[in-house]
Amino acid sequence: MSGNSRGDRFRVTTFGESHGGGVGVVIDGCPAGVPFPLAEIAAQLARRRPGQSHLSTQRKEDDLPELLSGVCPETGATLGTPITLVVRNKDARSAHYKDMANLYRPSHADYTYEARFGLRAPSGGGRASARETVGRVAAGALAQTLLRRAHGVEIVAWVDQVGDVYAADVDEAAITSEAVDAHAVRCPDIAAATEMEATIVAARAAGDSVGGSIRCVARGVPPGWGAPVFDKITADLAGALMSLPATRGVEFGEGFAATTMRGSAHNDAFTTSDGAIVTATNRSGGVQGGITTGAPLRMRVGFKPVATIFKPQQTVTNTGEEVTFQPAKGRHDPCVLPRAVPMVEAMVALVLADHMLRALGARDSDLGSSS
Amino acid sequence: MSGNSRGDRFRVTTFGESHGGGVGVVIDGCPAGVPFPLAEIAAQLARRRPGQSHLSTQRKEDDLPELLSGVCPETGATLGTPITLVVRNKDARSAHYKDMANLYRPSHADYTYEARFGLRAPSGGGRASARETVGRVAAGALAQTLLRRAHGVEIVAWVDQVGDVYAADVDEAAITSEAVDAHAVRCPDIAAATEMEATIVAARAAGDSVGGSIRCVARGVPPGWGAPVFDKITADLAGALMSLPATRGVEFGEGFAATTMRGSAHNDAFTTSDGAIVTATNRSGGVQGGITTGAPLRMRVGFKPVATIFKPQQTVTNTGEEVTFQPAKGRHDPCVLPRAVPMVEAMVALVLADHMLRALGARDSDLGSSS
Amino acid sequence: MSGNSRGDRFRVTTFGESHGGGVGVVIDGCPAGVPFPLAEIAAQLARRRPGQSHLSTQRKEDDLPELLSGVCPETGATLGTPITLVVRNKDARSAHYKDMANLYRPSHADYTYEARFGLRAPSGGGRASARETVGRVAAGALAQTLLRRAHGVEIVAWVDQVGDVYAADVDEAAITSEAVDAHAVRCPDIAAATEMEATIVAARAAGDSVGGSIRCVARGVPPGWGAPVFDKITADLAGALMSLPATRGVEFGEGFAATTMRGSAHNDAFTTSDGAIVTATNRSGGVQGGITTGAPLRMRVGFKPVATIFKPQQTVTNTGEEVTFQPAKGRHDPCVLPRAVPMVEAMVALVLADHMLRALGARDSDLGSSS
Amino acid sequence: MSGNSRGDRFRVTTFGESHGGGVGVVIDGCPAGVPFPLAEIAAQLARRRPGQSHLSTQRKEDDLPELLSGVCPETGATLGTPITLVVRNKDARSAHYKDMANLYRPSHADYTYEARFGLRAPSGGGRASARETVGRVAAGALAQTLLRRAHGVEIVAWVDQVGDVYAADVDEAAITSEAVDAHAVRCPDIAAATEMEATIVAARAAGDSVGGSIRCVARGVPPGWGAPVFDKITADLAGALMSLPATRGVEFGEGFAATTMRGSAHNDAFTTSDGAIVTATNRSGGVQGGITTGAPLRMRVGFKPVATIFKPQQTVTNTGEEVTFQPAKGRHDPCVLPRAVPMVEAMVALVLADHMLRALGARDSDLGSSS
Repeated sequence: MSGNSRGDRFRVTTFGESHGGGVGVVIDGCPAGVPFPLAEIAAQLARRRPGQSHLSTQRKEDDLPELLSGVCPETGATLGTPITLVVRNKDARSAHYKDMANLYRPSHADYTYEARFGLRAPSGGGRASARETVGRVAAGALAQTLLRRAHGVEIVAWVDQVGDVYAADVDEAAITSEAVDAHAVRCPDIAAATEMEATIVAARAAGDSVGGSIRCVARGVPPGWGAPVFDKITADLAGALMSLPATRGVEFGEGFAATTMRGSAHNDAFTTSDGAIVTATNRSGGVQGGITTGAPLRMRVGFKPVATIFKPQQTVTNTGEEVTFQPAKGRHDPCVLPRAVPMVEAMVALVLADHMLRALGARDSDLGSSS
Repeated sequence: MSGNSRGDRFRVTTFGESHGGGVGVVIDGCPAGVPFPLAEIAAQLARRRPGQSHLSTQRKEDDLPELLSGVCPETGATLGTPITLVVRNKDARSAHYKDMANLYRPSHADYTYEARFGLRAPSGGGRASARETVGRVAAGALAQTLLRRAHGVEIVAWVDQVGDVYAADVDEAAITSEAVDAHAVRCPDIAAATEMEATIVAARAAGDSVGGSIRCVARGVPPGWGAPVFDKITADLAGALMSLPATRGVEFGEGFAATTMRGSAHNDAFTTSDGAIVTATNRSGGVQGGITTGAPLRMRVGFKPVATIFKPQQTVTNTGEEVTFQPAKGRHDPCVLPRAVPMVEAMVALVLADHMLRALGARDSDLGSSS
Repeated sequence: MSGNSRGDRFRVTTFGESHGGGVGVVIDGCPAGVPFPLAEIAAQLARRRPGQSHLSTQRKEDDLPELLSGVCPETGATLGTPITLVVRNKDARSAHYKDMANLYRPSHADYTYEARFGLRAPSGGGRASARETVGRVAAGALAQTLLRRAHGVEIVAWVDQVGDVYAADVDEAAITSEAVDAHAVRCPDIAAATEMEATIVAARAAGDSVGGSIRCVARGVPPGWGAPVFDKITADLAGALMSLPATRGVEFGEGFAATTMRGSAHNDAFTTSDGAIVTATNRSGGVQGGITTGAPLRMRVGFKPVATIFKPQQTVTNTGEEVTFQPAKGRHDPCVLPRAVPMVEAMVALVLADHMLRALGARDSDLGSSS
Repeated sequence: MSGNSRGDRFRVTTFGESHGGGVGVVIDGCPAGVPFPLAEIAAQLARRRPGQSHLSTQRKEDDLPELLSGVCPETGATLGTPITLVVRNKDARSAHYKDMANLYRPSHADYTYEARFGLRAPSGGGRASARETVGRVAAGALAQTLLRRAHGVEIVAWVDQVGDVYAADVDEAAITSEAVDAHAVRCPDIAAATEMEATIVAARAAGDSVGGSIRCVARGVPPGWGAPVFDKITADLAGALMSLPATRGVEFGEGFAATTMRGSAHNDAFTTSDGAIVTATNRSGGVQGGITTGAPLRMRVGFKPVATIFKPQQTVTNTGEEVTFQPAKGRHDPCVLPRAVPMVEAMVALVLADHMLRALGARDSDLGSSS
């Protein structure tokens, strides 16, 4: 397979380049009879959209998705067949890219795409463009709806860090998307958000970019999702999150901080609460041996500073000529973090919806067997 | 699928519990005609084996693999058919586990396995045992052989950190497995290794455990391996590495440190060297847009302190009764890091061998087409 | 997975219902650099299109495909990314279907869809409609182009039988699509075609339908494609062909006729021709042990008479009420065979293109290894 | 993937050559808590075993399976982890094969294996040997147990034809495995069986082989299993059955006979029986649009005469030299049909068990969703 699909039972295939006919997604494996959540999808796409605030690129795309298949026109319910959503490319100024068709932008995928495919789309980033994530975010919104309806799962991500500014501790049991969206930076600690905003604005003023990290929590996931070996839920989440553009690392629970702890300080004791078996602490981030414990999933994803900057940089052309490259000030975000929040939520939702479906049939009793 | 297989074209399926007939692996997709590297496989298994030094569990297993299929007895070459390797379980003292059959060990998979499957193997860790990795390490040694023969790829991992002791910078261009194995801790910085050893010994003396991290470099990977979207090579490596027991995080290139940098400081400029296009720096860790650049792959994996400790801990039984749990001093490593080095190398090799094969056919010219 | 994708390395996912926004296909795994054969795709779609002759339904659809992704607008070459083609639904008279929303048409999928999904699209056949094959035929035309460019493979299918009228023996070494298309029935034996036409016209006049069979030959397939066990090329072709609507059986080489033969009469002796090893006969249909011999692939597919007829039939509603069902004379073909010819070619091409790509990397020497 | 695995949720991977260490299977996806049916597995293997009657090869193998993993030693229940079964190769007289190491036996896979892999196992048929089916039959017996326990599904296959001898009509609603096994030929029509036996004995006396066909029925399959497009249950069964050695064709319901019928004669009217919706006839063989109707599945598989005969045949060596090949009278069945009966049952069971699991989660209500 060529790596444009993800998921086993809730399977998404994204398609489209940044400057072709459009981008979109086919979702295969959504159960039949789900009221199709077009409003939720549009809302998540709006959070991903460029040009949504003064902090992001001014490339304007309303990104309204067109529904091609999989939903009953009469009832609005999913049919159990592939759901296809397309967002047309409208604001495609490929002339912008003419100058760079023969050179390799530093830390972009220009060179590596050519190394793999022997060619690349001469205009825009092709599949490496963040625009590819439109399909993921749309599918993720559907996945979130499934998870909420079936188990009340809530997935909330937020900007935890921009450059060297970190959010103070957030109450992960209570954080909501509304609180996250209260500031354009999508950090619920407003004091930190203000500083992060200043960091972003300063980077842009300098023609530069800045990185950061996002935390995400998934509350309400029942015990027993995941698999023991290669498809540990942490493994699957790590693979899904690291497939987002510009990611550099991912950690779960206490993450790298756990590496300095002793077992006696890190282990989560089991206890009971209202008759249910629960962990007294949640340093493991809701997963043991790759399978969920019922406690909230907790994770963090690190993003590099985006490669597009407006300072002169050294690079080479495809004939090996050394050149200086400096794009005209253009339409790129100096910091992807605020717009990456719905992308992170989407990837987490896609993995969880897939594992919700995969958990069916794990036990003989699921089949209604009698001996 | 049930998560016991990994890889698309070089596909491994591991099987076996810690206390059943044995553990092993089926490798499907190995090209025909490869001299089967039994010695290399045995050598990597020896690095993974318990009881190999005073730092690890005294559970004795020589772990000699038995070859059931896939190799021509007459020539010793692979046949292009599934290769099956089995290691018998010999030292299975399941009586050890009788006491814990009804309670949930803190931060083990006992509870989550029951949540998923409705039951668990009453003896030992079942598939959650690190013994499951025997098959991965064996398959990984074969993958390393393929990679070395075809492209001279070298994969070297080492212990970078134990508790709060960190290795000084290691020359990633020169580090060898021999240097790594010079100390039982598998840290090539001998001064740090000595301190790490003391940290491990102290943890064991306290009936406790300790975490740490491993770095890995893969040199000689050509440009063009990987895929643009979900199967970015970083995504695939992240998923593979996070499927190892006790992992808590993974990062690539500068990793989380990149999140505090500006783009102008993080971008890798392209230049030429001996006529080839290369990057002047390698902060991205050998990958752009999910596809290899030709520079060494660089990554780090964090491991939690192992859950098995010999102090009393609070937990509950499967009927919800609160109990104190303290295992008899037994056969568990206080620190998995030294033995995890070959596991990390194996997972990296499995991903890279898979992508080596997947890269074939990416271009029309690979098919010998003429218009 | 939900069964809307097929292929391992040349992978197609079809989407769309007969009466929603449109139908289409995503093709993932097409090598980069292939001149996109839009004309060939349009030509094959024209052969599949309803209303193309007096023998088929008068439902008018020009079925012009819209290209959404995967092809470079500047050069017309494939990018190595997913190729998406959509054909809009235009002539959707769902009112036609109102009457039958609550009853189960005999030998249609109405009842079984409800049994699986708990609901069905109230208008038209949903995914069971032959309209779903638009995406297959489009993708198949691309696959045929790949196969032709790389190996000169030619795939030709023709109508071999309608009702009890059979074509005389056709010269499988010489048959061309042009000869097949010389008669609207798509049988190259014109005398038989004339009789078949009469059979179809008579069935239509009676408000009835009629079945038949299609033969297909693939010439130019090199030796060595396929796999030994579950993915024998015959197994894969059988699965692909039997996924077409209305199919009832498939056979290869001598097919069921081989079951009455002795081995000495059926075996294909090896000999040499111009220095190449070939079989003197081709009773096996170009495959031994699931792998191609280099001789032409030969197969036959049987189609039932289509379920839509215009005579009164007994059936029940979804509340179990017995009713008589007789559709208004409408837009359905009395015989699918002529339009199924490009569908058969498409499925064969999809399987072969997939196996062409899968054959890469079967040998150590494919990797350029040195010892 | 390399084609040694089959199934999506109930996934089997077979391994092993005819003359290596052994053959076996890994079954991944079996639900936990199923009493492991070792006796049923042994019984089906005994039906597949060579040397079981005077009609089959005298190669003696007791074929007792060894269980390596996936079953709890204490309780005998499946663990939800991969189940591995191995049967050792004991009676491996590879000297038998020395003479033929450099020539291509007519209608064997010798030539095609070399074409694919660049080499072949010099002794025996490697993966092309019918011995590979040991793993399938073992896994199929487990699948049959799952199906029986959950839904009372019964799968019965029998020899319908040997050469030009056909069984009279069999009562498909009542046929049992016991009736099938009453004669060594495994044809429940004893008069026909006696004639078939004579046909086989005559072929053997002539140093020749003979083909035939097997019918199979699966009773008790509930409505709603299967999928609309590529994974139609007929498509999946066709692919599975055609992956058996020596198969030449497969058909469902009325099969190729349907091609000569009119729709009014072929359609299955719906009616009610005891309040349930059923079809009055079952010409479609229990499947509409790729999804089960609840009526028995009905199918037929055609097998060629086996390629191994003891008459002189023309062939060539791997250097293109023309030679006459005549094996010493040896250990091969003149007719595979009797031993193929459990193989057919196994493949049908594997497909059905997979679709039983895949049917879970097809509807929103399966998830316990509330709006």
